[in-house]
Amino acid sequence: MINNEMKHLGEERSAIIELFEKGKILKEKYGDDGVYDFSIGNPNIPCPDIINETLVKLINDTNPTILHGYTSIQGDKNVRDSISAYLDKTYNANTKGELIYITVGTAAGLAVSLKALTSGSGADEVLVFSPYFPEYAVFIHNANAKIVCANTNESDFKPDFTDLENKITKDTHVVIINSPNNPTGVLYDEITIKNVCALLENKQKKYGHPIYLISDEPYRELIYNGATYPFITNYYDNSIVTYSFSKSISLAGERIGYILVNPKCENAKDVYAAICGAGRSLGYVCAPSLFQYLIPHILGHTSDISIYDKNAKLLYKELSNIGFKPLKPDGAFYLFVKALEDDDEAFSKRATNYNLLLVPSTSFGIKGYVRIAYCVSEKMILDSIPRFKELYDSYH
Amino acid sequence: MINNEMKHLGEERSAIIELFEKGKILKEKYGDDGVYDFSIGNPNIPCPDIINETLVKLINDTNPTILHGYTSIQGDKNVRDSISAYLDKTYNANTKGELIYITVGTAAGLAVSLKALTSGSGADEVLVFSPYFPEYAVFIHNANAKIVCANTNESDFKPDFTDLENKITKDTHVVIINSPNNPTGVLYDEITIKNVCALLENKQKKYGHPIYLISDEPYRELIYNGATYPFITNYYDNSIVTYSFSKSISLAGERIGYILVNPKCENAKDVYAAICGAGRSLGYVCAPSLFQYLIPHILGHTSDISIYDKNAKLLYKELSNIGFKPLKPDGAFYLFVKALEDDDEAFSKRATNYNLLLVPSTSFGIKGYVRIAYCVSEKMILDSIPRFKELYDSYH
Repeated sequence: MINNEMKHLGEERSAIIELFEKGKILKEKYGDDGVYDFSIGNPNIPCPDIINETLVKLINDTNPTILHGYTSIQGDKNVRDSISAYLDKTYNANTKGELIYITVGTAAGLAVSLKALTSGSGADEVLVFSPYFPEYAVFIHNANAKIVCANTNESDFKPDFTDLENKITKDTHVVIINSPNNPTGVLYDEITIKNVCALLENKQKKYGHPIYLISDEPYRELIYNGATYPFITNYYDNSIVTYSFSKSISLAGERIGYILVNPKCENAKDVYAAICGAGRSLGYVCAPSLFQYLIPHILGHTSDISIYDKNAKLLYKELSNIGFKPLKPDGAFYLFVKALEDDDEAFSKRATNYNLLLVPSTSFGIKGYVRIAYCVSEKMILDSIPRFKELYDSYH
Repeated sequence: MINNEMKHLGEERSAIIELFEKGKILKEKYGDDGVYDFSIGNPNIPCPDIINETLVKLINDTNPTILHGYTSIQGDKNVRDSISAYLDKTYNANTKGELIYITVGTAAGLAVSLKALTSGSGADEVLVFSPYFPEYAVFIHNANAKIVCANTNESDFKPDFTDLENKITKDTHVVIINSPNNPTGVLYDEITIKNVCALLENKQKKYGHPIYLISDEPYRELIYNGATYPFITNYYDNSIVTYSFSKSISLAGERIGYILVNPKCENAKDVYAAICGAGRSLGYVCAPSLFQYLIPHILGHTSDISIYDKNAKLLYKELSNIGFKPLKPDGAFYLFVKALEDDDEAFSKRATNYNLLLVPSTSFGIKGYVRIAYCVSEKMILDSIPRFKELYDSYH
């Protein structure tokens, strides 16, 4: 009499979590140094010192009934205003604190936004680009909407515009973009963003209703080689940003982020009200208060992300030397590598024989690749290279 | 094209939040001392010193990538085991860490449990006792189940067993009890619990399926006059506890609690899997990590709750002297008082003319009362008495 769908969802877990848990077991057997766990995007670089310094200062200097008490449901007003001021200054955006909703991380931000932006009728379509973060499918299903997957080009994993044109129908109400991308590490350049937006503008006119563009940006600051990522509200009116103080600042477990509704969004206030309602409906009361009050002090700060850049280049070079075909990463902390057989799950399974934990791309909705999360120590990367060589040789 | 139901939910907010926000505005006009805000259950007593001391210690002494990194989805294993050990020792229970799921507060615990324990078909019924915490209705609706409200006795607000007998049908899959109770402050004694459980056992046999009993216990420690509250797993096999480190320890804004599945529950592992799945579905990844690691250090600690007891007795005496008819409170930090007219919303509105913020009972599914949250300073209570007198006199 329990909910079998939820039971299934709880049992299956994602392939990523599955590997993460498998890694724990392998580590008990082989020790931490004997397992090459590239499975999970859990930052390995310590957060910047300002985090812990500010936390201690807040704890010592703030009235505890305020520090640990309820904030407004949408988040403390001053905190929201500080985020808005930071975004306006940094990205020349025109945001409003009253249209920011602080969330328990980006997963919450996505679950809430998707529930808010679709009717719940079962007919609405949400378009994602392949490969995609697997929880998108879970949150879209929770909103009783349909997931539609648009192709990307095999060469660069950027949108295949012919396919996108075909996949957007009268039922498309939301499109999600994720750049820098999980799992490919690809960054959408400004031309790509402009082309996506232009296509969506046309489709909005054609179908006579808004198509909301969610820019899912937990990796916004994790960009290498001097590149930058356009700020979506400057390019498309009906846009929503979901962000997390998580990956680039090493606070993934603390669950703190925000949803930003573009003030130029059609009926922005209604969209925001629906977000507040969806949050309430899913059991969110407010985001953790201590970490809310931390936000104004850490805006613009990151961990030492040059280490991820170094890891990316090292891993790319070494795996290429062996004979693997990795995609050159522009951002995030993932290397996307062609599996050595069509069946990426079999390949991932074989890799575990070499104590290599690599996530099969099937869990991202595409066949034939693995995702290597390089938010790990340089030593682990160096130690893993001979095992990657053995894995490679086992196929040749 | 947004979700109108969510928009409505976001706009309407609860009457409690509405008053909370109204209080903010009144306070800007009259100053903090000029407004008697009894609207919200936000603890006013500082958390015990051990909270902030331990937080600082954890921050200073723990590897930050672990402290602020992802835990297992269901919560850190050691933390869950520590909760289990504490409950077993304190309540002579037989719990298991592997059946504890750490949540982002009790609201999350309820939203997740209700989604897990009902089929989502639209037909399942969840029974609550009137008056009830208004978000129960929101979470039940989110699970696509039906809320059924059973009466309580007007004299003591304990279950009306004749009505309960009638209201439980073949479609009843979940019953929620909440003791100490929000909004009445009533505590269910052991006889009441035994009678509820016996009735549910019979109904389970009659209908041939489990009826899960959720004991919602955010106020477990807030009990006065030397009374105690039975631990539900010792009385009923198909039971689930939702708990929050919130009210009694003054951490309401930090959003940390747990769901406990009784190991004696039919298919306990499946129930737990469904809870994990429902959490995933609603966008929960893990509960905030720093506050998870705090838990083992604060189990059994509370704020100085004797202050609430003192407030309760003071307010009860003073309001009775004026002529009001409050219910003698046994626990939580709410006084339930008969409104001076049938329309409790009109009464609450009239009270705001005296800068008194009292929550109308209609929002708890019952007519003719107001809820007075006395987690406020003694000074505010004393200062408010003349205004209560004026309010009373305005009716006589």
